[in-house]
Amino acid sequence: MNALNGLAPFNRSAYAELSPSPRIIMTPGPVEAEPRVLRALSYPILGQFDPEFTLLMNETMELLRCLFRTGNEWAYPVDGTSRSGIEAVLNSLIEPGDRVLIPIYGRFGHLLHEIAQRCGAEVIVMEREWGSVFDPGEIAAAVKRERPNLVAIVHGETSTGRMQPLEGIGAACREVGALLVVDAVATIGGVPVETDAWQLDAVIGGTQKCLSIPSGMAPVTYNARAERKLLARKRIERGLRAGSEDPPTSRPVQSNYLDLSQLQDYWSPARLNHHTEMTSMLYALREGVRIALSEGLDERFARHRLHERALTAGLGAMGLALYGDPGCKLPVVTCVNVPEGIDGERVRERLLRVFGVEIASSFGPLKGKIWRIGTMGYSSRQTNVLHLLGALEASLLREGYRLPAGEAVQAALAVYDPA
Amino acid sequence: MNALNGLAPFNRSAYAELSPSPRIIMTPGPVEAEPRVLRALSYPILGQFDPEFTLLMNETMELLRCLFRTGNEWAYPVDGTSRSGIEAVLNSLIEPGDRVLIPIYGRFGHLLHEIAQRCGAEVIVMEREWGSVFDPGEIAAAVKRERPNLVAIVHGETSTGRMQPLEGIGAACREVGALLVVDAVATIGGVPVETDAWQLDAVIGGTQKCLSIPSGMAPVTYNARAERKLLARKRIERGLRAGSEDPPTSRPVQSNYLDLSQLQDYWSPARLNHHTEMTSMLYALREGVRIALSEGLDERFARHRLHERALTAGLGAMGLALYGDPGCKLPVVTCVNVPEGIDGERVRERLLRVFGVEIASSFGPLKGKIWRIGTMGYSSRQTNVLHLLGALEASLLREGYRLPAGEAVQAALAVYDPA
Repeated sequence: MNALNGLAPFNRSAYAELSPSPRIIMTPGPVEAEPRVLRALSYPILGQFDPEFTLLMNETMELLRCLFRTGNEWAYPVDGTSRSGIEAVLNSLIEPGDRVLIPIYGRFGHLLHEIAQRCGAEVIVMEREWGSVFDPGEIAAAVKRERPNLVAIVHGETSTGRMQPLEGIGAACREVGALLVVDAVATIGGVPVETDAWQLDAVIGGTQKCLSIPSGMAPVTYNARAERKLLARKRIERGLRAGSEDPPTSRPVQSNYLDLSQLQDYWSPARLNHHTEMTSMLYALREGVRIALSEGLDERFARHRLHERALTAGLGAMGLALYGDPGCKLPVVTCVNVPEGIDGERVRERLLRVFGVEIASSFGPLKGKIWRIGTMGYSSRQTNVLHLLGALEASLLREGYRLPAGEAVQAALAVYDPA
Repeated sequence: MNALNGLAPFNRSAYAELSPSPRIIMTPGPVEAEPRVLRALSYPILGQFDPEFTLLMNETMELLRCLFRTGNEWAYPVDGTSRSGIEAVLNSLIEPGDRVLIPIYGRFGHLLHEIAQRCGAEVIVMEREWGSVFDPGEIAAAVKRERPNLVAIVHGETSTGRMQPLEGIGAACREVGALLVVDAVATIGGVPVETDAWQLDAVIGGTQKCLSIPSGMAPVTYNARAERKLLARKRIERGLRAGSEDPPTSRPVQSNYLDLSQLQDYWSPARLNHHTEMTSMLYALREGVRIALSEGLDERFARHRLHERALTAGLGAMGLALYGDPGCKLPVVTCVNVPEGIDGERVRERLLRVFGVEIASSFGPLKGKIWRIGTMGYSSRQTNVLHLLGALEASLLREGYRLPAGEAVQAALAVYDPA
């Protein structure tokens, strides 16, 4: 097309028709999407201000309130992957110079630290060895001692497969006037997240994990305490202002795209123009959350527990040891120590190439040391657990690892069918 | 489920099956999605580090280079709507205190101003009356006079339906060492965008307009001049650092989610973990760009011109006057003055409710004064133009507007079939 000006020409035959191979995805995300969610993605577009579309937006807000177990007015998606939701919340609630307390027990705690620092926060860090979590009382005591403006904490830490108990921290935050922000990306839809009962001021959920919606949206919710902070910093966008607008009483947020005070105007009946809502992803989110609530949250949590039980029974029967403190295991992610003498990455590669089964490694100090196996959302089902156990056993045998052949799947079957 | 604690219970029957009505979408975006793109959205998920998926990511980069007509190494999507791409580029290239020149001739120029200001820039604004654009020589002269660090300008301004000629501005920017950033959200895939020939240092494209991919990704490209600025500010994420990393020589960017220096590590062979790539949207982007390039960019631009000609012939035959300076009309958006005595919003509402046809209003000073009709991407086709003209004529007659009945569609047909 344009070889004359040095640009690579487009080769019409170079790009094959899209045809992704079928996979059994047992990672901590993205996991297999619900087929009904994939179908929703393929429906034709509606305009963003079409009344039929704004009705879907409003219904999605109602569904998200049920999912987050909250009476909050505000529950809507940020248009980006999970960390866009985390950054939107922190960016909108942290003013430069604010004191932010961050208890860290894995990689995603470090991400909260990173983002808070970029927001200009004075960050106070508490660290716990990877594989364990904090006693909530210890965090509550730190809140009372440090009197931060905001506390940010990960609920389910996929890097280590741990879950932080949150009850009691909210009360301490209210005592000192701090906002409590929780990253529930890995837990929402898979284990209980009690926004109101636990007094969480803002919560960020993820789609591509226990909700089995493709990555692309970050549902968030926040209460009136958080909203007060937003409203003090609100500034209507240039090009939309009426002219005589009052200047904000606090410093405006750094981002326009991730400014919750502008996003809530877009999601309010005012529908003040901001971004162009992601039509197809919104269809997917509404469908995925509707499916989760139709299953019943309690039933869904029980299902996740069942498949965790079957998986860990099988892994144990294979002679594999689980990583980390069992008292705070994240039910939807199981971390396994790679046995001495086994090349964990070669096992993962074979699982994917030969069996079409994907599991994950980890980050930083745990890279290559553990396997992380997700049992999340649509991927959390009997057939997947049984196939994974069979494939992992075969791959380990292939590597010369000694194990009692056949027992892993039998142990899982005994959980599913105890008779 | 939880009436006891004051939360709204989930009503399983309250949420109908998703079933969006068919629409003829003739707005400046989002427009109708290509059916093959919608199909791509429905394919099963691959893991983000699955070699089959990273191959699709690399292919998408190659396709984007062809689309942007560039030899740049970096061409990839930011995971968000168009303005996330704009903010990622500005946020990554503007350091607090940088002088940024922004020529404004419509609403989206004000958005560039807003974002640049939130990045801490000292913004120098040039304004042109809505409905016209700048002489490129005038901008070049301002660049030489003001010697900014960066110039940001909108290529196609959908709020007014104007297109800014860009040739000559790049040379002036290089003379004074400024970076030239272009918002080509509305033009990419519909009219020529010559990244290299016009010496553009960074360009942001949109998906939901001339590419007919649902909103959700923002393809960007930038050259080595822009990358140098990024690399000076680069900082590897906490939790992924090796420890002995050199501190950045300039101030790190404010955002983590929209930090191009981190995004390019994720899109590089290093695949340094950042967000979880939006699988389904990436499928859609690859398919949509592949379709655009398979049509042929020149053929595609000619198609957009043809349907613009037919549309404007029909509107003229109806006695409607186009808004703005015809010398700089944006080919893919046609702005029409709402005739005296006609309630433009009532006409729009009838078009949508009765005919299933959507057109847009505008913003700020033009709100309610003009209609904006898009002929973009898959929506830019003969059947759509003819149906729209027939429906608009009927709606205007219904409002008592006097026009020569039947002539609009005949005028468009004469363009399509001159024999």
